[in-house]
Amino acid sequence: MINFATTKHEHVNLIIDIGNTLAKLVAFDGDTPVEEIKTSNETLERLPEFVNKYAFKQGIVGSVFGITAEAERQLKRLDFPLLYLNAQTPVPITNDYRTPDTLGADRLAAAVGAYMQYPGHDILIVDAGTCLTYEFIDKNGHYKGGCISPGLQMRLKSLRAFTAKLPLIDSEGPLLDIGYDTETSIRSGVIQGMKFEIEGRIKYFQEKYPSLLVFLTGGDIFNFDSKIKNLIFADKYIVPRGLNRILAFNNEQS
Amino acid sequence: MINFATTKHEHVNLIIDIGNTLAKLVAFDGDTPVEEIKTSNETLERLPEFVNKYAFKQGIVGSVFGITAEAERQLKRLDFPLLYLNAQTPVPITNDYRTPDTLGADRLAAAVGAYMQYPGHDILIVDAGTCLTYEFIDKNGHYKGGCISPGLQMRLKSLRAFTAKLPLIDSEGPLLDIGYDTETSIRSGVIQGMKFEIEGRIKYFQEKYPSLLVFLTGGDIFNFDSKIKNLIFADKYIVPRGLNRILAFNNEQS
Repeated sequence: MINFATTKHEHVNLIIDIGNTLAKLVAFDGDTPVEEIKTSNETLERLPEFVNKYAFKQGIVGSVFGITAEAERQLKRLDFPLLYLNAQTPVPITNDYRTPDTLGADRLAAAVGAYMQYPGHDILIVDAGTCLTYEFIDKNGHYKGGCISPGLQMRLKSLRAFTAKLPLIDSEGPLLDIGYDTETSIRSGVIQGMKFEIEGRIKYFQEKYPSLLVFLTGGDIFNFDSKIKNLIFADKYIVPRGLNRILAFNNEQS
Repeated sequence: MINFATTKHEHVNLIIDIGNTLAKLVAFDGDTPVEEIKTSNETLERLPEFVNKYAFKQGIVGSVFGITAEAERQLKRLDFPLLYLNAQTPVPITNDYRTPDTLGADRLAAAVGAYMQYPGHDILIVDAGTCLTYEFIDKNGHYKGGCISPGLQMRLKSLRAFTAKLPLIDSEGPLLDIGYDTETSIRSGVIQGMKFEIEGRIKYFQEKYPSLLVFLTGGDIFNFDSKIKNLIFADKYIVPRGLNRILAFNNEQS
């Protein structure tokens, strides 16, 4: 008789990253992401299925969306300890943000994920997700804060929501310098506009911090100016990596 | 007995520019704007008061918001002829937009307003209003189209509307390179981000069209890089000026 349990990864960490659009569940074997699945940020519907696949020994939850009653019920059923990231959670960098209580878990985790890979460097992280966020960590490991602006889909949705006549445009399709109809005008306005915005801010920071490393991450990919130097296309796991590091750091502390 | 009628400007044009946020009523004496007032884009509430001040002989209506039943009632009461700008209205530039029926009246009027002041030049108009729009007219007087992205207030509103926890931030306040709390992170993200976006697109167009003239207009003012050349801070009347030109052009035609 085959023991299916032996096919499971042992001593695996569960990373739960609850975002504004969806939640990501990631299994980490040590420092290595093994599998990621996406699920509803309201119900964590696929959590039982994911938990059933791995012999998780512990987990960490970071949420910018909050934790709904249904998500809380799902999390309470887990038979291993969970660390809920909040402003009091010890982290392996110094948090200089003035209002840590309102700092998004994903922003802090991204800072940890990037700095722990490149300690001793000034780092800017550009995360193009639901929001377009920038995080700056100086070479001494101090997280200083950053910037928040609307992400790609949010910009497209806002044009429909806050004008009388503009439609919701698909981000996929012809991308022109000069749009010749509503669709191409909006696509160019939003997508090229974000590209100009991101490139401009990166260059501005690079003038202030000449040895800056720049991480790009998030779901929305742009074709960036190849002249931008020291650009690192971060893997999609930078936030989960940061959460996993914070979990490990808290184990070492206790 | 004083005849108040003699204090009125004679032969004045009424320009009605109905935008996504409000409507502007402007009185033009020939090519000169005499007075502008703002009113509701839904009710045109202040139209009777404005009409009572001037001996308007004709008017033009351009709307991106549509014309509500209440606005229509107000407009029907006027005792002088009104031209409603639409895709069939003759204009003094060539409209190469592929879907003129969906081209915002303000975008076309801005193109006319700028080109009639600087005919024979490649022109880019940047209008930072409810939306951030760009219009390109080539030196042969062909309007080619442009780009549309969310305006400043729309970006601020969208962060509240489309995230779980971000608040609505006032655009006025400290503007930092690196925000240290939610408010300063969003203000920097949105305002500096728009500045980088606009500067980047202007520079991109200037590389393609070296003799480009760039008009900046709209309600939202940014502190732009003084290195941007050929930058013209357009007066706030560029859209009304264009509408007034279109009205004059139609008089000449008939």
